[in-house]
Amino acid sequence: MAMIPDRQRQWTVAARPARRALADGDFALVEAPVGRPAPGQVLLRATLLEFAPAQKSWMENAAAYRHPVEIGGVMPGNGAGEVVASADPRFAVGDVVAGPIGWQEFPLVDADELRAVPAGVAPAAALSTLGTSGRTAYAGLFLVGEVKAGDTVLVSGAAGAVGTLVGQMARLAGARTIGIAGGADKCDWIVREVGYDAAIDYRGGEVKRRLRELAPGGVDVMFDNVGGEVLNDALARLAPGARVVICGGIARYNHDPRDRAAMPEGPRNYFNLVATGSRMQGFVVYQYRHRFAEIDRRLAGWLRAGRLVPHEDMQAGFENAPATLRRLFEGANRGKQLLRIGD
Amino acid sequence: MAMIPDRQRQWTVAARPARRALADGDFALVEAPVGRPAPGQVLLRATLLEFAPAQKSWMENAAAYRHPVEIGGVMPGNGAGEVVASADPRFAVGDVVAGPIGWQEFPLVDADELRAVPAGVAPAAALSTLGTSGRTAYAGLFLVGEVKAGDTVLVSGAAGAVGTLVGQMARLAGARTIGIAGGADKCDWIVREVGYDAAIDYRGGEVKRRLRELAPGGVDVMFDNVGGEVLNDALARLAPGARVVICGGIARYNHDPRDRAAMPEGPRNYFNLVATGSRMQGFVVYQYRHRFAEIDRRLAGWLRAGRLVPHEDMQAGFENAPATLRRLFEGANRGKQLLRIGD
Repeated sequence: MAMIPDRQRQWTVAARPARRALADGDFALVEAPVGRPAPGQVLLRATLLEFAPAQKSWMENAAAYRHPVEIGGVMPGNGAGEVVASADPRFAVGDVVAGPIGWQEFPLVDADELRAVPAGVAPAAALSTLGTSGRTAYAGLFLVGEVKAGDTVLVSGAAGAVGTLVGQMARLAGARTIGIAGGADKCDWIVREVGYDAAIDYRGGEVKRRLRELAPGGVDVMFDNVGGEVLNDALARLAPGARVVICGGIARYNHDPRDRAAMPEGPRNYFNLVATGSRMQGFVVYQYRHRFAEIDRRLAGWLRAGRLVPHEDMQAGFENAPATLRRLFEGANRGKQLLRIGD
Repeated sequence: MAMIPDRQRQWTVAARPARRALADGDFALVEAPVGRPAPGQVLLRATLLEFAPAQKSWMENAAAYRHPVEIGGVMPGNGAGEVVASADPRFAVGDVVAGPIGWQEFPLVDADELRAVPAGVAPAAALSTLGTSGRTAYAGLFLVGEVKAGDTVLVSGAAGAVGTLVGQMARLAGARTIGIAGGADKCDWIVREVGYDAAIDYRGGEVKRRLRELAPGGVDVMFDNVGGEVLNDALARLAPGARVVICGGIARYNHDPRDRAAMPEGPRNYFNLVATGSRMQGFVVYQYRHRFAEIDRRLAGWLRAGRLVPHEDMQAGFENAPATLRRLFEGANRGKQLLRIGD
């Protein structure tokens, strides 16, 4: 059984990165006591943290769908760990669980918020493929995008956590897949390792020309994780009745929505929705909470059958959590960004 | 029975108004022989022309959904007239019909393209309320926008042909209606005459503030006929699960889509679709052709019952056709723009 120390390290939020990129001073590494579980709570030894661009908006309190983050509070984030003390009948010492554990070594978490990592699934795969990323990819592609066999599916941010899953799921649905990523290496990687049918390097400045070649009949589903010029170029190539799924817009995350001059332009080509009778629909995964049980079953089934392959970018060391989050905004990650902490 | 002359006047397309506003030289008034119907054709004496902003895009051959317009060809447009000679069993001399008659005094039209003006319906009402405008309002509000009782419906271009119908239909559906129009007079008019619950004058520059007051719970359906800053402001006030119906974008009609610098920006606030789980969907009425019979029955029923009141801006004189089309782009019309021609 794991020793429970008295003290632990935590990363707290020291400043809100609104209207700018993340900086070192946005986080503070502090020491804090390790708690003891009250009834309904579980104490974990954290082993993994997962990272998503939305965490920056959480720090800004810009995400309406979650509780505000306090300055000086523990940085929120999902992760996995091992139960070291439990005051809830659903979890026993030694269980491996995942949930919103925050950036700390010994999280004290409400048992309601945790889910067991399914037997036969690695904790890293539970975070990369079954958690928020998997649910987001599934909800966006199937429930919002209504993908069907024979569709041409275009995915921006194709080398990211969600993008690597959307590409695989679209192929499972019988669609042709085109991924957009930054740089020749990532483009090779998404075709060779992730299984995209084709890739477009947005840094090459030839998204429009390549789209004409690769999707001569137009794009049926655009799954957009990026926004900006890539979204605009996709809107120019829609097939009749296309579905444009707005999942993320990392191009916008460092801008102030109240500052018109600083804000990236909207997609000028939105008007092509008219001639093609297409729709552009946004979503946040929590809007599909009522479908999570069904989604999780599908995802776990594909994962166990080897039909969905996890792609993880694993860093190491609790002290590196802020730098690991920044990797997402630098386009450094391939697949789901994870951080191994503890032993 | 009407005398059939040998000669008639026609307005032909003399230049394509791409990337600019309409100008006098875009049309030429010519004399041409009056035709005789071949089998399947009908000769009409035109009595009314109707006008829509899309006619400018037809002249530019920018509308993918219709046949190209030739320089020197008769300006296309819908209208109504009386049958003066028929070579088709479906129509007899004296019948009043509506359809794509073009800008000419004695149109020769394929009978397949014509529909009879229903008994008890004025020809002007058939054009303003049962034709393309009525079908567009219905398809956009009900089939694309999926309006339901209790919704707050926002309509831009609310004083226009489609906007006056959308406002009335939304009330019939049990929704609260807010219209956006240009100028205090038009705003008074849409509340007093058309029956909108409230109006916002976009020229007052206070769309955002007024929307906060009038739609504190957000907008469920935005029916957009205008685009530009009005659409952007609406996107900032969406209710959860909102539907943004893109019907027109008159703010864009004088710009070249290939010229980035000249093109109006896209809606910067499109990203609010994400947090609210909303969709923005475009349509052209012809995409709902398979529903026209059902739509026409609903519209005629409401019209006969007095539940849908036509609003028509009636000009007069065949020679004024180009100036009458321009009224749409000057925001001069209230309700459907029509032109009475002939006797």
